[in-house]
Amino acid sequence: MDHPNTANSLNTMYIPTFDDVLAAHDRIAPYVHRTPVLTSSYLNALTGAELFFKCENFQKAGAFKARGASNAVFGLTEAQAARGVATHSSGNHGLSLSYAAGRRGIPCTVVMPRTAPQAKKDAVKGYGGRVVECEPSTSSREEVFARVVAETGAEFVHPYNDPRVIAGQATCSREMLDQVEGLDAIVAPIGGGGMISGTCLTLSTLAPGVKIYAAEPKQADDAARSFRAGHIIADDAPETVADGLKVPLKELTWHFVSRFVTDILTAEEDEIVEAMKLIWKRMKIVMEPSSAVPLAMILRNRELFAGKRVGVVITGGNVDLDKLPWMKG
Amino acid sequence: MDHPNTANSLNTMYIPTFDDVLAAHDRIAPYVHRTPVLTSSYLNALTGAELFFKCENFQKAGAFKARGASNAVFGLTEAQAARGVATHSSGNHGLSLSYAAGRRGIPCTVVMPRTAPQAKKDAVKGYGGRVVECEPSTSSREEVFARVVAETGAEFVHPYNDPRVIAGQATCSREMLDQVEGLDAIVAPIGGGGMISGTCLTLSTLAPGVKIYAAEPKQADDAARSFRAGHIIADDAPETVADGLKVPLKELTWHFVSRFVTDILTAEEDEIVEAMKLIWKRMKIVMEPSSAVPLAMILRNRELFAGKRVGVVITGGNVDLDKLPWMKG
Repeated sequence: MDHPNTANSLNTMYIPTFDDVLAAHDRIAPYVHRTPVLTSSYLNALTGAELFFKCENFQKAGAFKARGASNAVFGLTEAQAARGVATHSSGNHGLSLSYAAGRRGIPCTVVMPRTAPQAKKDAVKGYGGRVVECEPSTSSREEVFARVVAETGAEFVHPYNDPRVIAGQATCSREMLDQVEGLDAIVAPIGGGGMISGTCLTLSTLAPGVKIYAAEPKQADDAARSFRAGHIIADDAPETVADGLKVPLKELTWHFVSRFVTDILTAEEDEIVEAMKLIWKRMKIVMEPSSAVPLAMILRNRELFAGKRVGVVITGGNVDLDKLPWMKG
Repeated sequence: MDHPNTANSLNTMYIPTFDDVLAAHDRIAPYVHRTPVLTSSYLNALTGAELFFKCENFQKAGAFKARGASNAVFGLTEAQAARGVATHSSGNHGLSLSYAAGRRGIPCTVVMPRTAPQAKKDAVKGYGGRVVECEPSTSSREEVFARVVAETGAEFVHPYNDPRVIAGQATCSREMLDQVEGLDAIVAPIGGGGMISGTCLTLSTLAPGVKIYAAEPKQADDAARSFRAGHIIADDAPETVADGLKVPLKELTWHFVSRFVTDILTAEEDEIVEAMKLIWKRMKIVMEPSSAVPLAMILRNRELFAGKRVGVVITGGNVDLDKLPWMKG
């Protein structure tokens, strides 16, 4: 399932440390925003908790993924950089890698299914990236991606199963600890586990007493089931409005999730859409369905968070304004 | 046309001074946000200017109007406060007055046409205000409003033709001057002229060299025509997507607009909707059509703003998420 130049076994993968996070933070500082933390007295009253929203929807390229992508791109040697970077992603990682490569002035190739929305292809190109289309199947994607790497010698940057990417995402919770005193917990959505792994990496060093909750759509709850089973369970093409969260855990993110996460809790589709609309309406920010999963989960589990100071990661803001989920039906 | 307890002539109206602005700022500080200033490298590249967006969509009650309303409410004597406040507004002023009255714990009555959206009535009630319905005509509104005042002895707080309100709105540009160095100009939308008058009041004292541009929908360009004619022209029920900007100038706002505004420039309806979508998409913030008029106007007049540092007031964020203007047709 993995691309040939990705290790299949954790034995051969480097596990990032907090020193890598510090290095990442220095490295990416010129290319990413220190995003603001917003609060809402309405949502505090509604949940009974004190919520602190870390707004990565205001991040460069519109998502936290700019952190990990920038760390990978700016950590390359000159020789590596000259050959460029490549990935397969029709989502925020492809966009973020294209952004980071553009800032360094190196080539970036993103392999995307030909069926992906034109707007997403255009967005990658808008940052200077090259889009190479494949058929919408795993076999075609792997074949096309292998050809791209063979032709260009580009460095593969996986969306989350990559120590450079996880160290980059970890800078987000480091900022939160700086921006908000006395947090009791941090809640972030979980798909492949990159953001949650970064959160684990930072908190296990700086604030081991702060709980880490992952929030997942019930309809794509492979991470929650993996967590309870004690091994990775990967679903085949789950369906959820939170389309950034369909991908499964992999060995490196599993390493962090299985060791440091307090719990993984889920929310239903209609609850996710309702929470998204609530944040738009009350906080006046544009964010993705994936970013609403934490609030939806908190609203389902009020007793767990009541009276607590809770950091919530708003992971991204790239949404099709012409196809908002509450317009359906 | 004015309510009986509003003066019709400027002779009898008090003109607020910068000392009133300083007093207002101290008075309202506990009840309003010092809103953030956001920037967008994309929109800077697009316009050729450096734009600094003052985000009053993040303000309490979702709009800058919370400043003026809070100043009026918290400036009342105990005896006045006991009788409460009243206004007629189906928009942000009614909501903001209800918010401010709720914070002081005094009654607030908002007269609204029975045809106003239920969501707007509910929002006023949500802050503790009382909604009294009238027929959707000026005569019914005045009659019902006069009855409310006669019954309650409530203090009338006009949406903009009120020195307390203008002094409150003026705190917004005072913050901008603090937050952004070396501004060449400030651009704000103009309807009745409350925000622009406040901007005039602050800048004429603190930064008389900074230009003041008002932006108006072409389809409701009564302020622009007034400005060129040298006297107030009031249109009857203009139609525009920027529904906060349909009201005419009045004597007190005309005092400031006619003396201190550099120019009033307009934008077409489709340009306003396009600018609104652009801000949502690129800046990831939810704001009203009225708040998009400045960017639409800047994009039409690039040569005027190129190379300049320009403050732009995002006046509010109260929009019906189920009826976005680009969903029409």
